[in-house]
Amino acid sequence: MANNIIPLTELISQFERLPGIGKKTAQRLAYNILEQPEEYAQRFADALVNARKKIHFCKVCQALTDRETCLICDDASRDKSVVCVVAEPRDVMAFERTREFKGVYHVLHGVISPLDGIGPEQLHIKELMARLSSGEIKEIIMATNPTVEGEATASYISRLVKPMGVKVTRLAYGIPVGSDLEYADEFTLARALQGRNEI
Amino acid sequence: MANNIIPLTELISQFERLPGIGKKTAQRLAYNILEQPEEYAQRFADALVNARKKIHFCKVCQALTDRETCLICDDASRDKSVVCVVAEPRDVMAFERTREFKGVYHVLHGVISPLDGIGPEQLHIKELMARLSSGEIKEIIMATNPTVEGEATASYISRLVKPMGVKVTRLAYGIPVGSDLEYADEFTLARALQGRNEI
Repeated sequence: MANNIIPLTELISQFERLPGIGKKTAQRLAYNILEQPEEYAQRFADALVNARKKIHFCKVCQALTDRETCLICDDASRDKSVVCVVAEPRDVMAFERTREFKGVYHVLHGVISPLDGIGPEQLHIKELMARLSSGEIKEIIMATNPTVEGEATASYISRLVKPMGVKVTRLAYGIPVGSDLEYADEFTLARALQGRNEI
Repeated sequence: MANNIIPLTELISQFERLPGIGKKTAQRLAYNILEQPEEYAQRFADALVNARKKIHFCKVCQALTDRETCLICDDASRDKSVVCVVAEPRDVMAFERTREFKGVYHVLHGVISPLDGIGPEQLHIKELMARLSSGEIKEIIMATNPTVEGEATASYISRLVKPMGVKVTRLAYGIPVGSDLEYADEFTLARALQGRNEI
């Protein structure tokens, strides 16, 4: 039985710890590793250790980078006066894919969530306040998720920032492009109506 | 952008090479690694290299093991005269979970599939023939999948083995336990009728 092959059990349990990977999938992935050439397991292992060791937070915006400051913060062509505040590093990628945003980012690494025991002090908010104190920043775009926690985080930061004379904006709510009105929930539709624009 | 963080891109692409893992999932898994403590990445890396290095085929039955012969082949209480022939190592686990089978196994590591360029010589059939030559084996249960390739492999091996005076059997076809007749395909139902038993 597999359960008696300790190195296999260990590999399966490492895969199983990953989010969204169940027992069956973990087994399938582990068997796949055994079927691949030995160099592949070694390359995968190196990639894991390397990524974890070399990647850290940009000392300015807290996004992920393997440099001291990230490529976006270092880019002279980006507008340093507009900061898009996001919850997670992956959100930076989502905005970058739009090729629409020319400002810079600030990554909070989470949202305020009392139920999970996450308060403002666990987020990278003080680093944001430090950036604001330079006076270079004119606008903060709150781009947290449209969830209860995302909204709470946006309004918490907004209350902190506004007294400093910095403009605070929030992403627009509305119907997603390419979606079907029939399937839009009533809150989204109501927001889309409120935010209607002249054409 | 993530694509500019080379260690992250490398980790994502390693996850993406796994079966059933798409680009989005690979990204999610890679970010998860970055969020975990550094020891976790190291343990995962060790598990990968260890499993690949220490696990090989049992020299008797070709199942996976980290010993010279596997625990099943070494178990004196198992009936060495009945060999269940399966395509993949994971099939051994499936039979062991039933706690029903007291014989031993032989793992072919694939099935005959001309379209994929897999002929009998790529499978561990000669190792099976070598085991049969000892004369200890009385019955071979062909337990390959009920697919075209599985059937072809079963009948190919059956033709090789029968002249040696060894009994060759095949798993029973029929309706799965707990299933709904309404959803059974006509081939399965026909086989279930043909194989009906008196109660």
